[in-house]
Amino acid sequence: MARQPGKVQIIPLGGMGEIGKNMTVIRYGDEIIVVDAGLMFPEDDMLGIDLVIPDISYLLDNRELVKAIVLTHGHEDHIGALPYVLKQLSVPVYGTRLTLGILEGRLKENNVSASNLHAVKSGDQIQIGHFSIGFIRVSHSIADSVALSIKTPVGVIVHTGDFKLDQTPVDGKVTDFHKFAELGDQGVLVLLADSTNAERPGYTPSEKSVGVTFDDAFRNARERIIIASFSSNIHRIQQAIDTACKYRRRVAILGRSMVNVVTIALELGYLNIPEGVIVDIDEINNYPSSGIVILTTGSQGEPMSALTRMAMSDHKKVEIIPGDTVIISATPIPGNEKLVSRTIDFLFRQGAEVVYESTSGIHVSGHASQEELKLMHNLLRPKFFIPVHGEYRHLIKHSKLAQSLGMAKENIFVAENGQVLEFTADKGAVTGKVTSGNVLVDGLGVGDVGNIVLRDRRQLSQDGILIIVVTMDKQRGQVAAGPDIVSRGFVYVRESEQLMEDAKERVKQALEKCELNNITEWAAIKSNVRDTLGKYLYERTRRRPMILPIIMEV
Amino acid sequence: MARQPGKVQIIPLGGMGEIGKNMTVIRYGDEIIVVDAGLMFPEDDMLGIDLVIPDISYLLDNRELVKAIVLTHGHEDHIGALPYVLKQLSVPVYGTRLTLGILEGRLKENNVSASNLHAVKSGDQIQIGHFSIGFIRVSHSIADSVALSIKTPVGVIVHTGDFKLDQTPVDGKVTDFHKFAELGDQGVLVLLADSTNAERPGYTPSEKSVGVTFDDAFRNARERIIIASFSSNIHRIQQAIDTACKYRRRVAILGRSMVNVVTIALELGYLNIPEGVIVDIDEINNYPSSGIVILTTGSQGEPMSALTRMAMSDHKKVEIIPGDTVIISATPIPGNEKLVSRTIDFLFRQGAEVVYESTSGIHVSGHASQEELKLMHNLLRPKFFIPVHGEYRHLIKHSKLAQSLGMAKENIFVAENGQVLEFTADKGAVTGKVTSGNVLVDGLGVGDVGNIVLRDRRQLSQDGILIIVVTMDKQRGQVAAGPDIVSRGFVYVRESEQLMEDAKERVKQALEKCELNNITEWAAIKSNVRDTLGKYLYERTRRRPMILPIIMEV
Repeated sequence: MARQPGKVQIIPLGGMGEIGKNMTVIRYGDEIIVVDAGLMFPEDDMLGIDLVIPDISYLLDNRELVKAIVLTHGHEDHIGALPYVLKQLSVPVYGTRLTLGILEGRLKENNVSASNLHAVKSGDQIQIGHFSIGFIRVSHSIADSVALSIKTPVGVIVHTGDFKLDQTPVDGKVTDFHKFAELGDQGVLVLLADSTNAERPGYTPSEKSVGVTFDDAFRNARERIIIASFSSNIHRIQQAIDTACKYRRRVAILGRSMVNVVTIALELGYLNIPEGVIVDIDEINNYPSSGIVILTTGSQGEPMSALTRMAMSDHKKVEIIPGDTVIISATPIPGNEKLVSRTIDFLFRQGAEVVYESTSGIHVSGHASQEELKLMHNLLRPKFFIPVHGEYRHLIKHSKLAQSLGMAKENIFVAENGQVLEFTADKGAVTGKVTSGNVLVDGLGVGDVGNIVLRDRRQLSQDGILIIVVTMDKQRGQVAAGPDIVSRGFVYVRESEQLMEDAKERVKQALEKCELNNITEWAAIKSNVRDTLGKYLYERTRRRPMILPIIMEV
Repeated sequence: MARQPGKVQIIPLGGMGEIGKNMTVIRYGDEIIVVDAGLMFPEDDMLGIDLVIPDISYLLDNRELVKAIVLTHGHEDHIGALPYVLKQLSVPVYGTRLTLGILEGRLKENNVSASNLHAVKSGDQIQIGHFSIGFIRVSHSIADSVALSIKTPVGVIVHTGDFKLDQTPVDGKVTDFHKFAELGDQGVLVLLADSTNAERPGYTPSEKSVGVTFDDAFRNARERIIIASFSSNIHRIQQAIDTACKYRRRVAILGRSMVNVVTIALELGYLNIPEGVIVDIDEINNYPSSGIVILTTGSQGEPMSALTRMAMSDHKKVEIIPGDTVIISATPIPGNEKLVSRTIDFLFRQGAEVVYESTSGIHVSGHASQEELKLMHNLLRPKFFIPVHGEYRHLIKHSKLAQSLGMAKENIFVAENGQVLEFTADKGAVTGKVTSGNVLVDGLGVGDVGNIVLRDRRQLSQDGILIIVVTMDKQRGQVAAGPDIVSRGFVYVRESEQLMEDAKERVKQALEKCELNNITEWAAIKSNVRDTLGKYLYERTRRRPMILPIIMEV
């Protein structure tokens, strides 16, 4: 083993300049540990893509060095790439019990073995090679979240994971301020900290404040109450159930991921539900509507989710009844605004009373705002700082926040995915770059859709396609059949017969011209047809459909 | 003329349950006037569509009855359909000078005559048939906005247009509260009022508050200042220019629509710019960077706009220099959030200081919040109320607001586009339905893209297309050439050669089976190929590309 006692490397493979696919490599000599392995939901222009995972070429090239993957919490953007990563890389995974419980479900869905998962709890300390890793309790919008202290021979690295400093968490388990203070006293070399809310002044409200809003909504509701939330927010679910108990309502759980997570959380003791409160969704009609709460998914207006189906009168088991109160206990994730607002509109049309974000305190963020970030910096007093988990502007804002606390700009690294950040006990620098990027997952295909395919999908989505088929007689060197034109997604053909006739005529002329000029190479003929027709169609319609000439030979 | 002295009809053709394509028909007997004729920007699932306009079949079927189109202000969602409407309907258009100035530009771009436009000013009263129409000054995010009072033999209809109650407007021209009070005193039969901000409690801040934020930003800026805003917000532009003057900076105007609107507004006297302040964009390098402001478009992150091009280092004339201050003086319109945030990120990457909405008071809405809406209702005290200009939930909230002021629910009509609302002096009811809907504009095509084309585009955008070409020998009834398979937007072919080979094999088998079973009808052969291949590809890839079999005959 080539030891480099004086240096530790930090290499983000995801999460820099983006919200999603969080993954950070920490390397000391010939030992690598990885913090988190998340997925990202596709950007608008990644048409047809289901999800995006980090490019892990660097880890595959160094597979013998990778000693462990350590998880901070169970959200998709921190664990969602593991079903793909673990198929390629056999390595132990460490996380808290709820995190691993959720992960196990994901692995099972993807037929990946869950035999190498190792449960830890906050307060634990484990040794992996030269790394001594501590798990520190923090508050977040999912239970059992931890920050990590990673002791290396060079110094201590602290990774906050996703966190907020909730002073009154629902389960009473406050962020381990003492541990952070202790680490700060002992000296922190590098801090990596959550930047999601670096733009927001003040403090993020306590999760408990949502309980107050639930109480208001329950007090005013006369008929059924339907609550949509993130299934992973166990504390939100606990509060919904507590409020239901207070108002003597029974609770039915609906939606695959809600059922899954509630089952896991109950098994592991993260949810506390009195006997008899939960009823089967098929039994809700046995109770008066004033005695029912339905807890479900779909807070993001996802087209296939339970709430959206209800809104569209398309759910098999539940239909909205005028007078129902629907509580959407979430904020739209950027990009989902229109989906959510469409769902709300349809719920109103069905006669429901809808309680949603822009009119109430029905959701709070799980991420620290500026004053909380400042406290974290002041507790830890790190020598170097890497803002993580954010769009570029969030990283910049977080960097400025650190500077406002007195940190020197040169000790702050606003990094890019793939950059190698190298630290000695008193110096930090960007020393290189490794492969990083997006691997696109589409159905069963991982990485088989790239830029060319996406470019084609974009063109097809805008103006459709025209296919021109010609059969050529090989021996005589002339057209044996066709040209035929077939279009899809271009114009409504019945109303554009003349246009299509004219187009065919242009293709014929182009082919004749090729014959006259003795152009016999297929590529040249195709290119002639494409250009002629493309120009003509743009002139007539101002559209640029994909034009695909196909020549057959008999 | 078949007079119906006791009834007036109000028929919304757009703007109900949607933000955009505002258009309302008012009919008394054999006379129709139309309020506004706006466009809507396409929904996310309207792939490739440029814009959406209202279906005006009802007006075309009653073309002799249409006496005038009356405009409230110059925003696209109120005038943008006119280039299409006026091609089909020859009718005088009334509006204030700035509204018509902007409209003229649009008409010219579309080669539509602007000869039948008639300028009015706030305070004017015009008579059209039995309708006496008054133009009432209101504040909005475009200058020269008016509400309409429409006196009919049945009673007075008030249409607020888009409005807010700015107590300190930039041009000093306060909303005509007195006129609204007078109308309320005389009695209003029906009120149609802007519902955009019916969800927002309190008051919308004055446009002048943005000037204060400009001042802060200018005071802190050491290098160039680049301001992106809606070109139509003349008062915002005036404030930017005033602040530039105060800080002795010169102003360059950039971006087609910004140049157009500033030119019109200057010509018509709506902008007040001292001599020598405006400089050509090509001359900005003749001045110190601390003496320059660039006023431009792109506040919505529109891909082709000046600001986006600058952010991407793709602008011909201006590139971002580290130290530039970029002020994005707008809120993202729902659906544009990701575009705007991408632009901000790229500007930060270029080293600019970016001032944007979520961190500052750099934008205010142009629409009345709840307290302003209440005042409008209390001034006018209408007998009947139709909330307009909003998603369904905005209309519902506005209806509830009116009820909270004491209005009876049965006097409020939350209407759908196309519904005929009929009012006598003391009764209102929905009495029918006329044709209404979306006409899609794609390039030069108006209405030639419908649901089938959009469905195809959606399928193409998700999983691409596979085209299978077979040439059949007519006489022998067997395959003469092929099958050939060509795909686009499906998989990256070079990495999926085996898959494509296997797919071809399946097609061959399907064709052979058809031959064996004497299936000779082309439609049946195609359907066999499509089913076989579709099933196979879904199994292998979990994707459902469009499959298009083409049979040629020789």
